[in-house]
Amino acid sequence: MKIRVATTNLHKLEEISHILSPFGIEVEKLEAEKTEVQHEDVAVIARKAAESLCRHYGDFTVVEDTGLYIDALSGFPGPYAEYVYRTIGIEGVLKLLSGVEDRRATFTCAAAICISGVVKVFTGSSRGVIAERPRGTGGFGYDPIFIPEGYTSTFAELGVEKNKISHRARAFTALGVWLSKEFKY
Amino acid sequence: MKIRVATTNLHKLEEISHILSPFGIEVEKLEAEKTEVQHEDVAVIARKAAESLCRHYGDFTVVEDTGLYIDALSGFPGPYAEYVYRTIGIEGVLKLLSGVEDRRATFTCAAAICISGVVKVFTGSSRGVIAERPRGTGGFGYDPIFIPEGYTSTFAELGVEKNKISHRARAFTALGVWLSKEFKY
Repeated sequence: MKIRVATTNLHKLEEISHILSPFGIEVEKLEAEKTEVQHEDVAVIARKAAESLCRHYGDFTVVEDTGLYIDALSGFPGPYAEYVYRTIGIEGVLKLLSGVEDRRATFTCAAAICISGVVKVFTGSSRGVIAERPRGTGGFGYDPIFIPEGYTSTFAELGVEKNKISHRARAFTALGVWLSKEFKY
Repeated sequence: MKIRVATTNLHKLEEISHILSPFGIEVEKLEAEKTEVQHEDVAVIARKAAESLCRHYGDFTVVEDTGLYIDALSGFPGPYAEYVYRTIGIEGVLKLLSGVEDRRATFTCAAAICISGVVKVFTGSSRGVIAERPRGTGGFGYDPIFIPEGYTSTFAELGVEKNKISHRARAFTALGVWLSKEFKY
């Protein structure tokens, strides 16, 4: 008997072959992505989610996705920022950066909207650095440790000022400009 | 104009409303999951991926998914073990655990196979602890820092012995037993 395993990891394939050979099962590599949905680009994630949701909910449905990409950590936590916040949290991220000089990071937000069955994606980014310790009480998530370029305060200290300069402000302002032109309301 | 944003995060919704109000756009919360695919359970991830792949590749297609759940880190890195390995790596995981007494962790593997258009999932787990430093040259991924219960060696030190006791061995042995019974070959 032969099975085809969808993996790009040859170590796994070798182990699986070894485990199944006593059963007389042959293992073949299937050249296919395990899932179509594991992406590190929030624009791709938002687009795919919107394509799926629009089929059920129709026009003017919007999906938002945000990632935090820390240079010194090879982009971690990236699109998994929410999961990482729920598990190791801000404390864990600061621990990973303890003793690290280069604290540069980028917040990226994608807003995907469906209009007449077509998905349009708007993105916005904020470049900045990760603070040494949390500061401020506004905002949410990583706001207490993100200091945008040109500022000395964190997003959490900036309060509503954040909504003028943030990644989310840039993505949704682009969406707002486009909608108001497109629909001339 | 009104748009519906698919998010469960009320902070985001508030920000988006604030950003779009100058454009005369009203924001409503859409009670829907942003994506159908963000799960922390590898059995669910493998099942969904198999359902999608089987439509294209037919019977005897197998999807494997593995997660590493560290108790003291609220389950991190969980199903994102591969992404975390590529970014912060073993070094990052050890840094997160530096000074942490409780080093217990669980490796879980899920193998999903499609037979006649139906997906069956087999899972296997290994309980163990995270080593203080990497040891051994066998295996791959987190094997140099995972010491299974009842052993003092890491998976990377155990070599092929790993394939008798690992999470992957347990999941794929269950698959092999089932296939050999079901198809009486």
